[in-house]
Amino acid sequence: MIDAIVKATNIVWHNAQVTRVQREALLNQRGGTIWLTGLPSSGKSTTAYALELELFEKGFPAYVLDGDNVRHGLNKDLGFSAADRAENIRRVAETAKLFADAGIIVVTSFISPYRMERDFARRIHLEAGLCFAEIYIDTPVEVCEGRDPKGLYAKARAGKLKGFTGIDDPYEPPLAPELVCKTAEVSPREIVFRIIEFMVEEGFFREGASLLSHGRSFAGK
Amino acid sequence: MIDAIVKATNIVWHNAQVTRVQREALLNQRGGTIWLTGLPSSGKSTTAYALELELFEKGFPAYVLDGDNVRHGLNKDLGFSAADRAENIRRVAETAKLFADAGIIVVTSFISPYRMERDFARRIHLEAGLCFAEIYIDTPVEVCEGRDPKGLYAKARAGKLKGFTGIDDPYEPPLAPELVCKTAEVSPREIVFRIIEFMVEEGFFREGASLLSHGRSFAGK
Repeated sequence: MIDAIVKATNIVWHNAQVTRVQREALLNQRGGTIWLTGLPSSGKSTTAYALELELFEKGFPAYVLDGDNVRHGLNKDLGFSAADRAENIRRVAETAKLFADAGIIVVTSFISPYRMERDFARRIHLEAGLCFAEIYIDTPVEVCEGRDPKGLYAKARAGKLKGFTGIDDPYEPPLAPELVCKTAEVSPREIVFRIIEFMVEEGFFREGASLLSHGRSFAGK
Repeated sequence: MIDAIVKATNIVWHNAQVTRVQREALLNQRGGTIWLTGLPSSGKSTTAYALELELFEKGFPAYVLDGDNVRHGLNKDLGFSAADRAENIRRVAETAKLFADAGIIVVTSFISPYRMERDFARRIHLEAGLCFAEIYIDTPVEVCEGRDPKGLYAKARAGKLKGFTGIDDPYEPPLAPELVCKTAEVSPREIVFRIIEFMVEEGFFREGASLLSHGRSFAGK
């Protein structure tokens, strides 16, 4: 008897799941992924954190996935072989998809040098009806090498670091990115505004969100 | 020159990351994980989705991680060997931690039969200062077997399914769970209210959130 009641209840409650549309309504935005790609030291993390901050200040929940929070946890078991690097990006893509499904705006900050991997991330998002934008942080390798805050380019040039993207491992530039950002020519602040402008146009924010609700506005920037 | 400016700007912007406390303030809740554990068909998913719905209706962003959204994506490469099942739970724990760090309340719905794995999930959350609660969905195996919506117990009894938790694979009940829920005795609705009551006491919701803000209230339930 109890069994029958619980079974019947199961059916009702299982049907009453929260839909993504409901979650997005609560957060007043569409879940989706801003996928940054570019050479080491091209400015991906700078852009990612600046974008997260700008979104946060307007009241839109966003979250950055990058080497700092992924390599030390979820992908701790992975090294830097070709297979492990591919698996690293696959898991990031799938995790970003989960966040996007939860209604969050995810900003991923990984070199992600191969088109095939980025195309996979795009495909799984689009198949699930989630927003996705590939943003190419297009900084000349000379500029990246000039920054080199961790001295990795220097090590790679000295042959102490093998398989370094841009030096002895290829970077495949996006063929049709949604946006190209040139950090050597445009300030991080201006780049963030351009990305948000693009996101507004692409419908990342629910209708009216850019003008209404808790004074959140991207106007006048 | 440009290089120098960009470098300097990098430093400033990197320092201006959004903190977890700020994210939690925006969402009016503390990020954390409600880790459900129990036998197959014990009522974990029913509980998880009912809890997510109740939280959502009060305006608190929550997200369920379960076999449906994890096994088909992030953990698609994993089978059901002992090692793969362990890796499955490890990745779920790490992904839950990322969601919690983003300020979201995660509800995980996995058998997670081994204490060591659940203790790992707890440890990485607590070390990061994140809320974590292990909730034992304590349903007698006879009741679970009576429900058996996918006929898995029947298959396991017939020897067609090997390593099935509760039949020929062990389930290690939690030794000190934060809460024990008996789905054979208490309705899903009542269970959800008990979990939320516990969450209120444990500080999952920011001070005042349970009484104020957008009419969200758990009082009177």
